[in-house]
Amino acid sequence: MSNDLNLVRNEIDEVDRELIKLMKKRLNLVAKVGEIKRDSGVPVYAPNRESEMLKKRRLEAENEGIPPQLIEDVLRRIMRESYQSEHDAGFKCVNPSDRNIVIIGGNGQLGSIFVRMFRLSGYKVDVLSRKNWDDFDIVLKNPCLVIVCVPIDVTIDIIHSLKNLPDDCVLADFTSIKQKPIDAMLEVHKGPVIGLHPMFGPDIASLAKQVVVCCKGRYQDKCEWILSQIRIWGARIEQVSAEEHDKAMCLIQALRHFTTYAYGVYLSKTNVELNKLISLSSPIYRLELMMVGRLFAQDPNLYADIILSAQRNIENIEKYCDSINEAVKLVKSADKKDFVDNFLKARDFFGEYSQKFLMESKLLLDSARDHIVHESL
Amino acid sequence: MSNDLNLVRNEIDEVDRELIKLMKKRLNLVAKVGEIKRDSGVPVYAPNRESEMLKKRRLEAENEGIPPQLIEDVLRRIMRESYQSEHDAGFKCVNPSDRNIVIIGGNGQLGSIFVRMFRLSGYKVDVLSRKNWDDFDIVLKNPCLVIVCVPIDVTIDIIHSLKNLPDDCVLADFTSIKQKPIDAMLEVHKGPVIGLHPMFGPDIASLAKQVVVCCKGRYQDKCEWILSQIRIWGARIEQVSAEEHDKAMCLIQALRHFTTYAYGVYLSKTNVELNKLISLSSPIYRLELMMVGRLFAQDPNLYADIILSAQRNIENIEKYCDSINEAVKLVKSADKKDFVDNFLKARDFFGEYSQKFLMESKLLLDSARDHIVHESL
Repeated sequence: MSNDLNLVRNEIDEVDRELIKLMKKRLNLVAKVGEIKRDSGVPVYAPNRESEMLKKRRLEAENEGIPPQLIEDVLRRIMRESYQSEHDAGFKCVNPSDRNIVIIGGNGQLGSIFVRMFRLSGYKVDVLSRKNWDDFDIVLKNPCLVIVCVPIDVTIDIIHSLKNLPDDCVLADFTSIKQKPIDAMLEVHKGPVIGLHPMFGPDIASLAKQVVVCCKGRYQDKCEWILSQIRIWGARIEQVSAEEHDKAMCLIQALRHFTTYAYGVYLSKTNVELNKLISLSSPIYRLELMMVGRLFAQDPNLYADIILSAQRNIENIEKYCDSINEAVKLVKSADKKDFVDNFLKARDFFGEYSQKFLMESKLLLDSARDHIVHESL
Repeated sequence: MSNDLNLVRNEIDEVDRELIKLMKKRLNLVAKVGEIKRDSGVPVYAPNRESEMLKKRRLEAENEGIPPQLIEDVLRRIMRESYQSEHDAGFKCVNPSDRNIVIIGGNGQLGSIFVRMFRLSGYKVDVLSRKNWDDFDIVLKNPCLVIVCVPIDVTIDIIHSLKNLPDDCVLADFTSIKQKPIDAMLEVHKGPVIGLHPMFGPDIASLAKQVVVCCKGRYQDKCEWILSQIRIWGARIEQVSAEEHDKAMCLIQALRHFTTYAYGVYLSKTNVELNKLISLSSPIYRLELMMVGRLFAQDPNLYADIILSAQRNIENIEKYCDSINEAVKLVKSADKKDFVDNFLKARDFFGEYSQKFLMESKLLLDSARDHIVHESL
């Protein structure tokens, strides 16, 4: 049997080598697309072209008798690489200017992504940080755009130091709360103001498909070129009011980080062995454990600052805890009927998304399993 | 520009069609491997062969100048399909016998997977359910294996009805708690007893890489063939004591389901619009929201039963809530130092896994993003 098996495996190896060559060819072609797009300023991420193309491929795959989801997954994976490789071509510059862009905190993890992206798009970018604070006056002599991208606890102070910007300079910030920084920017600066919140961490390879939240400040038309530029990088701009943003971030960031923190802290207080827990975990629990454990590889101060940054967050966390305490009472009294009633109310809240999430998470769990290797458990 | 773009895109389409043909060729070759494996009883999932093969491919990709992670991800995705296609060849039968296997509850979601797998492996399988309970005596005349796979709240009663099995028949169960069912099986049956807990839901396409927890009952050597059979299907057997299993499931199932339930219930009580929340979500929060929302697409009774199935679960949930209430106090008093201290203790608990999880989740989030299409948000 081992001889037969080896023969077929050699053939598979041969196919795989062809596969590598074909992928290389595809990446090279996509690099060409990147150059053409750069010259004409077309965004990196073209959702319509993509979904049309995938539809055709699925059909072709079905005609060949192979699962359409397989070809879609493989192409999506290759396309991810393509977005990244399109970077190498650089991006069209929406607002060519002799004046510089200043990113305060541009040597931080998030800031440096934007320094790179603006530079790849042909802008002159200066970074201002603690290290070169003495250059303040030189760097800020006549910028077209200043972005404040510093830790949340010093944002307002930094904004207050920006009293003498040229009137036509755009002042923007990347803070994860929006009302307070926007108010401060409007107070300190007479020109165009815009609040931005890039909804991603520093570990992304491309801005394609990322979300940047945008809250109006003043003279939105003068800020439009920045949004266009971000769109060319592949991200989606989501426009909301600062109030809406801050309310949503209570849940999206503060509460979620708090519950993850609290769950991890609780686990660390039990006498359970993590290894044992992992070895007994199905992919879904491993995924959940992963989402908890990853928090603790990061900077505790970052999370403390996000959670403690607003009174609203703390009030929200308290309400959440009231709700949890009620749920505990219900479980303690083994009240199955009330448990089910609440469950069904939450189902109503999720509406058609509960089913959609179930299906999406299946795709995701399948993909998570692809990367699980028994030995590593 | 659009002419140039179209020319290159036509070339990409051509490459993609070749890609489809190549994948078809690979799947056909893997089907051959499946046949050879079936004839010799080699497990579907061969981790060592896989990791060796991937190592070679990564090297070849690097030599061609394409990212090694790209080829690994694509091959892992194709291999997933391969595990499934190996099913079509059927599996080696470890314990050929004229006697039947009876799966009580074999028309349920989990039960039916095992009915199919045993049949694909050449066993004679009978299903006993409410519908054909009258066939009890006929079906259970001389089975070689009886598996109890019924809802947790009726498991013990069903086990108590199995008083007259042949002494050499193996009695097994698939319940998500293990101590009580094993005790009941040992009481009712004199022969071999084994407690199993398949750690997966009904939506899996293959048993490859899945985990089945195994707890000893009696005469383990007489049960060994069942474990060998499950291994051939590609799953990993994880052997623990019933006590250890039940303790871990408190956290892996009961507490985790409870926190997910409580979070969903809380969200449904806020006046937040889910659509808004989703449109503002970064992939990581969308993933977390997905893991919460998916619960509510499922059967509330199932979750109520799992949570309420053991006093231990409820005690554990209470302790967890005490811990959460402490964390709230800490946040309320804006005690950053204690927050950070607890954070670092939890980091110690996760040890090297926190970094590992951060990296693993990056792979996963990248893959989640592949499937995010802006339009669908």
